[in-house]
Amino acid sequence: MNEFDIIAHYFTQKTPARSDVVLGIGDDCALLDIPAGKTLAVSTDTLVSGIHFFGDVPAHSLGHKALAVNLSDLAAMGAQPAWVLMGLTLPEPNQAWLHDFSRGFAVLANKLHVCLVGGDLTKGPLSITCTVFGLVDKHQALMRSGAKQGDKIYVTGTLGDAALALQLKKTESKAIPEALLNKLYMPTPRIQAGLKLAELANSAIDISDGFLADLGHILQASAVGAQVQAHHLPLSDAMHANADVTMARRYALNGGDDYELCFTISPEKESLLSEVSKIVPLTCVGTIIEKRCLQVCDEHGKMDYEGYGYTHF
Amino acid sequence: MNEFDIIAHYFTQKTPARSDVVLGIGDDCALLDIPAGKTLAVSTDTLVSGIHFFGDVPAHSLGHKALAVNLSDLAAMGAQPAWVLMGLTLPEPNQAWLHDFSRGFAVLANKLHVCLVGGDLTKGPLSITCTVFGLVDKHQALMRSGAKQGDKIYVTGTLGDAALALQLKKTESKAIPEALLNKLYMPTPRIQAGLKLAELANSAIDISDGFLADLGHILQASAVGAQVQAHHLPLSDAMHANADVTMARRYALNGGDDYELCFTISPEKESLLSEVSKIVPLTCVGTIIEKRCLQVCDEHGKMDYEGYGYTHF
Repeated sequence: MNEFDIIAHYFTQKTPARSDVVLGIGDDCALLDIPAGKTLAVSTDTLVSGIHFFGDVPAHSLGHKALAVNLSDLAAMGAQPAWVLMGLTLPEPNQAWLHDFSRGFAVLANKLHVCLVGGDLTKGPLSITCTVFGLVDKHQALMRSGAKQGDKIYVTGTLGDAALALQLKKTESKAIPEALLNKLYMPTPRIQAGLKLAELANSAIDISDGFLADLGHILQASAVGAQVQAHHLPLSDAMHANADVTMARRYALNGGDDYELCFTISPEKESLLSEVSKIVPLTCVGTIIEKRCLQVCDEHGKMDYEGYGYTHF
Repeated sequence: MNEFDIIAHYFTQKTPARSDVVLGIGDDCALLDIPAGKTLAVSTDTLVSGIHFFGDVPAHSLGHKALAVNLSDLAAMGAQPAWVLMGLTLPEPNQAWLHDFSRGFAVLANKLHVCLVGGDLTKGPLSITCTVFGLVDKHQALMRSGAKQGDKIYVTGTLGDAALALQLKKTESKAIPEALLNKLYMPTPRIQAGLKLAELANSAIDISDGFLADLGHILQASAVGAQVQAHHLPLSDAMHANADVTMARRYALNGGDDYELCFTISPEKESLLSEVSKIVPLTCVGTIIEKRCLQVCDEHGKMDYEGYGYTHF
């Protein structure tokens, strides 16, 4: 199979048809119609073999995750996903792998009504770069820069599970709980929550490098500081069963790959979050303060925390 | 330098500011305003080290080319370039390399008023995936599917130079003519010609895999055939000086990396091409025929040609 056969067999018409796609896979460009009154939100993320994942990751999980981590960026802006382009670089065209990979990708794309409109398939070391396109009402996008003194800091779901799963994979021979593996391999982009939060929150980010690191981006962009209660961080049952409280909080503070949302909201709007908490559990974990610093405390008072977050270089 | 430092130092605010960029580098997504009456044209292309280029390619050329090959797809649709996202995967953050690479990228972006609005910087084997965004008047985009029986087939510029340069690099020790190296390292996306052709041509494609292969995509999408005059293919002086006529035509027919445009136009509109030929030389190289085949002839009549074009697998 050459690349044209692969695209036709595994990728063309596997994702939802959309009436706003004027031209999809198969020309020099895709052509897309943007509705009046909408702003286009775009983001690109690369997953590289040996860096973002290891060779043993199931192909269908990788297909899911390559799309999910990109959609997570749309969720953090409060955007409605619409289209995606995929740059796929493969060492060789393994058909079983392509079947599973494209299936994992398509299942998530169908669930969220995202249409694959084009891409580029090349030979080389395995990596996937997706570019996602979403739509948001003009002036409604959730940015990192909107956090205000007094805002409450919330996170969705539970934190640290993916980091714990990765650690267990490196060190343990026994089976890793499925709940943890699911968070690592099959993250859920918080699209519906993001759409609701666009009307409520002052700022948001998706947690990919680690909670403290990503909260730090909000603080920097908003020129504010934060107090975080480490003992309020939401931890899963699987986390409690597999890590002591010190390690659990460390995973939750600094572990990457959560793909949960962190957002800030004025206290007077907190009561409106009940609508969002029907979609995904929400936990208040701190407060935005004027002083430009990041303070973390636990039930005993201020705590020291280690240098935070994932950096590539 | 971590990735945030690299982005800030080499990439932020190095390309033109545009009033239609609501939010650029530095958040989960970029936010872009699409003018009413315009359709969005998007395309993504990956350059992989060892496949699309070799280690000795100057970094500034690579920065230029990573953007140019993507813009060439916009040119082929008759779209006006606007924005770009860059996924850059690097083995290590070599500052001299980053300086030259980002400079080559920015010079071309500034020339064509393209704003870098975001991206992803990751560690791994060297590769670059750009996603470009262009604007085209509704129903004005040039597609591969519009070729009609009787259309004349045209190409811009000269063909085969990049393929010859690559061959000389592999086999010759002497210096390669700069004109040839320029075509390989610094291709010119035919944006202005594409914009004019959007009003004139019936179909178009950019020549990246080789002239016959890419013309083949037009024929397939348009359900037509073509007669090509190999002796009319435009060849550069450097080609004539470095290859005999048989090899020269082979490079022109099958060589990749040209990034010229191939388009088809109704005979009654040919006279209107004089405007376009002020921008870039145009050559008529054949005719669209009803019979779905691809015939190549030279001054002696029909010629055999080898299996054509570049495929990855």
